[in-house]
Amino acid sequence: MTELRNLGLREVRVTGGFWERKIDMVAAEMLPYQWKALNDEVPGAEPSHAMENLRIAAGEKEGEFKGTVFQDSDVAKWLEAASYSLVHHPDPELEARVDEAIRIIAKAQRPDGYVNSYFIVASPEERWADLAWGHELYCAGHLIEAAVANYECSGKTLLLGVARRYADCIGRAFGPEPGKLRAVCGHPEIELALFRLYRATGEERYRDLASFFVDERGRDPSALEDKVPLAFEIPKTRWFRSDYFSGHAPVRLQRDAEGHAVRAVYLYSAMAEEYEASGDPALLAALRSLWDSVTGRRMYLTGGIGSQSHGERFTVDYDLPPDRAYAETCASIGLALWASRMTEIEGDGRYADVFERVLYNGVLSGVSLDGTSYFYVNPLEAEPRIAGARWDLEHVKTSRVRWLGCACCPPNLARIIASVGRYAYGASESSLWIHHYAESEARATVAGSRVLLRQRTDYPWGGKIEVLVDPEAPEGLDFGLKLRIPGWCGAFSCRVNGAAVEDSPVSKGYLELRRRWRPGDRVDLDLVMECRVLCADERISSLAGKVAVQRGPLVYCAEEVDDGPALHALSIDPAAPLRAEYLPDLMGGSVRVTAAGYREEAQAPEGEGRGGIPYAPLSVRREVPVAVRLVPYHQWGNRAPGGEMRVWLRARG
Amino acid sequence: MTELRNLGLREVRVTGGFWERKIDMVAAEMLPYQWKALNDEVPGAEPSHAMENLRIAAGEKEGEFKGTVFQDSDVAKWLEAASYSLVHHPDPELEARVDEAIRIIAKAQRPDGYVNSYFIVASPEERWADLAWGHELYCAGHLIEAAVANYECSGKTLLLGVARRYADCIGRAFGPEPGKLRAVCGHPEIELALFRLYRATGEERYRDLASFFVDERGRDPSALEDKVPLAFEIPKTRWFRSDYFSGHAPVRLQRDAEGHAVRAVYLYSAMAEEYEASGDPALLAALRSLWDSVTGRRMYLTGGIGSQSHGERFTVDYDLPPDRAYAETCASIGLALWASRMTEIEGDGRYADVFERVLYNGVLSGVSLDGTSYFYVNPLEAEPRIAGARWDLEHVKTSRVRWLGCACCPPNLARIIASVGRYAYGASESSLWIHHYAESEARATVAGSRVLLRQRTDYPWGGKIEVLVDPEAPEGLDFGLKLRIPGWCGAFSCRVNGAAVEDSPVSKGYLELRRRWRPGDRVDLDLVMECRVLCADERISSLAGKVAVQRGPLVYCAEEVDDGPALHALSIDPAAPLRAEYLPDLMGGSVRVTAAGYREEAQAPEGEGRGGIPYAPLSVRREVPVAVRLVPYHQWGNRAPGGEMRVWLRARG
Repeated sequence: MTELRNLGLREVRVTGGFWERKIDMVAAEMLPYQWKALNDEVPGAEPSHAMENLRIAAGEKEGEFKGTVFQDSDVAKWLEAASYSLVHHPDPELEARVDEAIRIIAKAQRPDGYVNSYFIVASPEERWADLAWGHELYCAGHLIEAAVANYECSGKTLLLGVARRYADCIGRAFGPEPGKLRAVCGHPEIELALFRLYRATGEERYRDLASFFVDERGRDPSALEDKVPLAFEIPKTRWFRSDYFSGHAPVRLQRDAEGHAVRAVYLYSAMAEEYEASGDPALLAALRSLWDSVTGRRMYLTGGIGSQSHGERFTVDYDLPPDRAYAETCASIGLALWASRMTEIEGDGRYADVFERVLYNGVLSGVSLDGTSYFYVNPLEAEPRIAGARWDLEHVKTSRVRWLGCACCPPNLARIIASVGRYAYGASESSLWIHHYAESEARATVAGSRVLLRQRTDYPWGGKIEVLVDPEAPEGLDFGLKLRIPGWCGAFSCRVNGAAVEDSPVSKGYLELRRRWRPGDRVDLDLVMECRVLCADERISSLAGKVAVQRGPLVYCAEEVDDGPALHALSIDPAAPLRAEYLPDLMGGSVRVTAAGYREEAQAPEGEGRGGIPYAPLSVRREVPVAVRLVPYHQWGNRAPGGEMRVWLRARG
Repeated sequence: MTELRNLGLREVRVTGGFWERKIDMVAAEMLPYQWKALNDEVPGAEPSHAMENLRIAAGEKEGEFKGTVFQDSDVAKWLEAASYSLVHHPDPELEARVDEAIRIIAKAQRPDGYVNSYFIVASPEERWADLAWGHELYCAGHLIEAAVANYECSGKTLLLGVARRYADCIGRAFGPEPGKLRAVCGHPEIELALFRLYRATGEERYRDLASFFVDERGRDPSALEDKVPLAFEIPKTRWFRSDYFSGHAPVRLQRDAEGHAVRAVYLYSAMAEEYEASGDPALLAALRSLWDSVTGRRMYLTGGIGSQSHGERFTVDYDLPPDRAYAETCASIGLALWASRMTEIEGDGRYADVFERVLYNGVLSGVSLDGTSYFYVNPLEAEPRIAGARWDLEHVKTSRVRWLGCACCPPNLARIIASVGRYAYGASESSLWIHHYAESEARATVAGSRVLLRQRTDYPWGGKIEVLVDPEAPEGLDFGLKLRIPGWCGAFSCRVNGAAVEDSPVSKGYLELRRRWRPGDRVDLDLVMECRVLCADERISSLAGKVAVQRGPLVYCAEEVDDGPALHALSIDPAAPLRAEYLPDLMGGSVRVTAAGYREEAQAPEGEGRGGIPYAPLSVRREVPVAVRLVPYHQWGNRAPGGEMRVWLRARG
């Protein structure tokens, strides 16, 4: 176990490039837009009622609760995101909205600390009565995460106080002691939040309560099964048994990722926290096995997880159909959160590789470039004519929507983008780690002294990264600078102050530069960013014979707007060179890749030897050479929404 | 409009070869087995209760109705099949069972002619109250069809009398006249049956009632919509609107095949009868358009129809995923029935081509070689590990079952196989037509005189057919003998009495030999039966880059028992020659096809450059040459049930 920990949000500042634009978009577009959505002020969008529910719970409005039972969590995630955003984008108007929302939540809190607008307004007699489906502790978790974020980012304590009182209320109700409820929430999240509250406050009782919830799950596999939800209908089928809740076995004995994908990766993230707290090797063994299950056998190329819409869940190994993918945006975010914690635990670049894969592909695809429309489901293949006509594709939307009745994803996107700096750097006792490349500054403590790191890069469009190293001590400081060499990178070069680095080892995915660093030292890392033609594991039957293109961390796709309709008729010649070019006018700046390929043309006249049926001798098949244009997957659907898209194309020859 | 009509069942006798074995199987295995199933005497099979329901309705037993509301129709279809079978396989024991079932049905009939065990036993107050979902007229239709078959095959009149009284009862209740119900059944079938009853009895009122039901459907598109079924639950979704019942538009205005596939093709068959009765060109236009819709854009290579399980229905053009096919056995049977009627109307081999395609592939696949297990759903690709793990493949069974709770298909299979001779020959004023090749004898009247035709052939294993022509008149008879040249056939030769036929035209799929035929004349037709590599229309996205093999009318498939697991890893070289060989020990005699192909092997060791994720540079992909063995699709799943199967394989190169 390394003692590697990520730097905190306040220690890292994104200063330019790809991510500054995304963070600016959160501040300028997403947060104001989402506030309107949460207040039902977006014309044509599905109503949220989330703020209204809280106002009613606070006694400031009359009315009925509306929306899902976990509607509060949308507000909490928005508060968390807004708190992050305010660090780098001070904005009095936004701050006033944040403070107003917090004031209402505080007012809604019951004297014993309880706060949940659904159970206060709609179902006051049912507190803790529907743990399987009520999302009560899930909402509590997001409230606590928002509180810690708000406290850490603003120094304000009102919401933190609310959260502490609520956590104490939960601690009085739940636990292993006689007279308390020995039970867990159907949707993990409280565990993560309590670990975070523990770290923010130092109060060990929060850690212990978090550990209790982690350890309790799956102890009695029937505990969450066949419960009748208070507020909605769930089919009583094999898809909603204990594994749906990751409650089919005690967590230390779990080996394969099962059930609802978001629930699973939130739980695994909490297990990682529990491992960091306890060092229990049984937890590490479970985490490693679950990691291999998720990322080795049940993950899409984009980092998306959950290959079945019904139950939003995992199925079996290598069942990864590109058209019927669920790959919920929130599941991708959860996988990123877990990957970051695994990076801390293992200090191994393979975890950061997955973080990068899912962030740049399966997470960012969830939001339009302007920040105001969203995908809940992220397929790797969209054929609108078919998707609109099939029951088994009803979950697939081929254009992003303005808001969702179940709007978990939009504010979740805002919070991960606004806090992306948290995941970029790490520090261990004698090393500083750069996990992710982004134009940014980081202030860290290593070997007992302060160091400023500054990155300049146009990553992910290019692979050149300049790192300026400034130890505070004028005489310099001995430490290792660990630079992640991504798994996608086949060749790289590195210079320190202009001199080529020849003999520094790459270990577990990191190039370690260990020396006395002096103020003004400069590192130039060049990750050679070639277009790569990838194939899938031969056990993924739906991808047999197909290839995808990746450049750097970005997975590419063909879109109808570039390549015409009937993308299935395209194949690419994987032996031909791929051409990449940065186009400043393409979606505000993007690298387009062009491949040599073929398009199958209409066949010989119908009726000839086939009586009008849609099958004919192969000899009638005709192909013409075409240039196949590809764009980054996360940017799809921004130019001509509702068009076709494909990540995996047939390889010809 | 030709005056072409099929010969009747009693005029044709199958005398050997492929179909004699199937008909023997019906007599020896299917009918006794199904009788047991209908009487709940098959251990381990889903109980039917169908005969018990009728005994209760007849007052011979006490008890409750059990099973689907259309359980009676299973008995009716069995009676129809048994009546056919008894013509060629006299069997006192089977005849006694038939007579016993008829006696019970007659006893169950109410004084006014009504007979339906569900509405008599379970819901006596609800007669005609649930036309959308109650299947009441559907069951009546199958009873009438059974009665006509029993009368025509045995000369007995008890069931025909029951049917006439029931038809009269329906005629008093339904019709365009004031005071009658102006409505149709949710499931077409009564229409077909009444046309048949009209032809058997000459009573025009049955034809008029049939025409009324045909014309009424879709007149008011809301008539069948949003009705609440009495006996079961149907989701109120877009999948169960008026188009589900083919009731979205008046039949003459329908152009695309929509809704439930079985309902649709039963209706189209009735529309064809109505056209034969009326000659209304608006009906012919609708029929031709619907034919092109079904067979040109919505039909699987096997003749299966219905590409969506939910609603057992059509979706949109070219949406034909091989793995998620529904392709219900009954829908294939319905398509065959319709194709035969279209052949009669148009005298065009393209309709008989589809009859042949669906009969030899999508129909026969529904029953095991021993006659005692059944597929309801007939996918073109089965991957048991995935099918068992996905909600959207829950309808796919990868081994045939002993019986079904909804057992429409097994007795429907028995009746079409037992009556297959009905579809083989046709007669028009001055021609005899051989639509289908099978070792058989036919006695027909043409040009005012009697002729005996005898076919000898091992079709479909071989393409050589010997036809002996024996006009009754010793001086011979002038007529045309029309021999179908199947659409699959690229080359053929024909000799009459040993002399090559050079100048006879092939028109609309038939070679016409017009001459004075004399007793003992002999025709030798040789349809060159090569293996053909087929591709799909370029608009079928799920089949892009794939090929299938067909030999004669038989579609082929790869099976795990021959080619190992992971059939998706196979590709075939479409340029290499295919080898066909008849193997007498393979499933009792079959032609196996061997193709040259490749199998993708396990990739380079995991982790190398990919951190354990299931994606890697294409350069690691490895293929080895293999011989790919293929067997006829309809025989799949007979040797090692539960294995993988694929019709469409990737084409390499």
